[in-house]
Amino acid sequence: MTSIALKLLAERNEIWLFDVGEATQHQILRTNIRPRKITKIFITHLHGDHLYGLPGLVASRSFQGGNTPLTVYGPVGVKDFLETSLRVSDTHLSYPLRFVELKRAGEIFDDPTFSVSAGELDHRIQSFGYRVIEKPHPGALLVDELQAAGVPSGPLYGRIKAGQDVTLDDGRVIHAADFVDRPQPGRIVTILGDTRKTPNAVKLGMDADVLVHESTFGASEAKLAHRYYHSTSKSAAETAKQAHVGLLLLTHISARYLGNASHQLVTEARTVFPNTKIVHDLETIKIPFRKQGVDYASKS
Amino acid sequence: MTSIALKLLAERNEIWLFDVGEATQHQILRTNIRPRKITKIFITHLHGDHLYGLPGLVASRSFQGGNTPLTVYGPVGVKDFLETSLRVSDTHLSYPLRFVELKRAGEIFDDPTFSVSAGELDHRIQSFGYRVIEKPHPGALLVDELQAAGVPSGPLYGRIKAGQDVTLDDGRVIHAADFVDRPQPGRIVTILGDTRKTPNAVKLGMDADVLVHESTFGASEAKLAHRYYHSTSKSAAETAKQAHVGLLLLTHISARYLGNASHQLVTEARTVFPNTKIVHDLETIKIPFRKQGVDYASKS
Repeated sequence: MTSIALKLLAERNEIWLFDVGEATQHQILRTNIRPRKITKIFITHLHGDHLYGLPGLVASRSFQGGNTPLTVYGPVGVKDFLETSLRVSDTHLSYPLRFVELKRAGEIFDDPTFSVSAGELDHRIQSFGYRVIEKPHPGALLVDELQAAGVPSGPLYGRIKAGQDVTLDDGRVIHAADFVDRPQPGRIVTILGDTRKTPNAVKLGMDADVLVHESTFGASEAKLAHRYYHSTSKSAAETAKQAHVGLLLLTHISARYLGNASHQLVTEARTVFPNTKIVHDLETIKIPFRKQGVDYASKS
Repeated sequence: MTSIALKLLAERNEIWLFDVGEATQHQILRTNIRPRKITKIFITHLHGDHLYGLPGLVASRSFQGGNTPLTVYGPVGVKDFLETSLRVSDTHLSYPLRFVELKRAGEIFDDPTFSVSAGELDHRIQSFGYRVIEKPHPGALLVDELQAAGVPSGPLYGRIKAGQDVTLDDGRVIHAADFVDRPQPGRIVTILGDTRKTPNAVKLGMDADVLVHESTFGASEAKLAHRYYHSTSKSAAETAKQAHVGLLLLTHISARYLGNASHQLVTEARTVFPNTKIVHDLETIKIPFRKQGVDYASKS
């Protein structure tokens, strides 16, 4: 069962969840995540191991005092499931609950700092991957350099920071580009639902800083993986390589690969894509800003 | 969140579950209970903490090879919830799933060895208690005494065991009652859903060997208990005393009484009903046959 939290506390004071398997609300008690900080939940597909914890989490968010809106994104059916669960159990939420049911690929969210797009994968039932794009952070105003150039502080600074060239009283033209740092590129995180190897996964993951990919099977079980519409660690690595991502995180490991056997999955994946890691329950991964010129894919 | 397993392995090679809170399928992994042995699930009421683990448990019973029928008893709505969950998640069970939705009190199951009746309690939504009655075990045939009396073994023994008086070839009449032990009375287990103090709880629990009763609050919080349609440990003890049960098991303890504070609940209950015990997660309680003449309620 799976649930992945994307912590955007510094960026938005929000947490986004991807899938809510049964007992997610129990596991959250072992973290510092407060359910009321969760503002968006993205369901990749409606299989029970990704879905059945949703009613309990949504109810506990209410019980614990959440009062800001919560939006649930997912395949058609997620609304029926959650509304039936809440109605039958006579659960009344303390906050507005919104649904965005996805019928096809495309952008599903956009605001000044983030956008999210969804793409269809190849699973037994409709399964989506989500590409979360952080927009560039505007470059900082080079205040010291403005002062050295004798530009008086005041409203002018705001115009320069916004990218406008300005003319001073003495006739000098101040070019904004000279006094504003280059924008800091945002990060891209792609989180995929269960899937076979598919070109859409590469598209969703293209140039992402982090690709979160299921790895139910080992390389020797490619036929099983295909039959059950799942991935091997090696096929996940192939996708990561083709998409030129920074870091590949393997999740959704079959119980037969728990413990030491999980090393086998990583070893296999690293023959194709060196910067691969298996993520364990409750583990936190920091996603640094990508330095220009760094080719994550070539790191070992 | 709650789930109670009534293990009837010796009696029927079955396990019955009462309520299925979220993560029941996880907790079961920490026991020796095999989901495929679960043949009946009784839901007391449809609040999420008693219900939300049902889809996952039912699905895992299938995944783990269950192929015998499973019957779910519960208030109207349990079928809608479970069927919606299975349909939306495209879950196909390997066994027949049956529903008995309860509209009113009465007997809901009866076969040669057990019967179950349901009664309505007093909760914010419809909440049932279940009274499980084990039928008397027939008395053993006193073979040694028959042989001492010179009764030849053979088909006659079967007739005597079945309670028939028989006439021997020599004209003697053998009274079955003289050669068959008294029947062993069966046990009665009553498991209640969430409730305020109500006469129906006494009725359901009357003369039960074991009464399983919620105890969300302590005695000093009787007003809170009433407002939220719950019980205090003391009101549960009053019900146990009035019903003259053998043993009172307190469950569904509020988080504020975890750890040492739970002793307070027991102490309060024992002032009214001495044979009271709090049940902890994963604890197993054996229910011995009640010896005639033993008054459990008077034990301390």
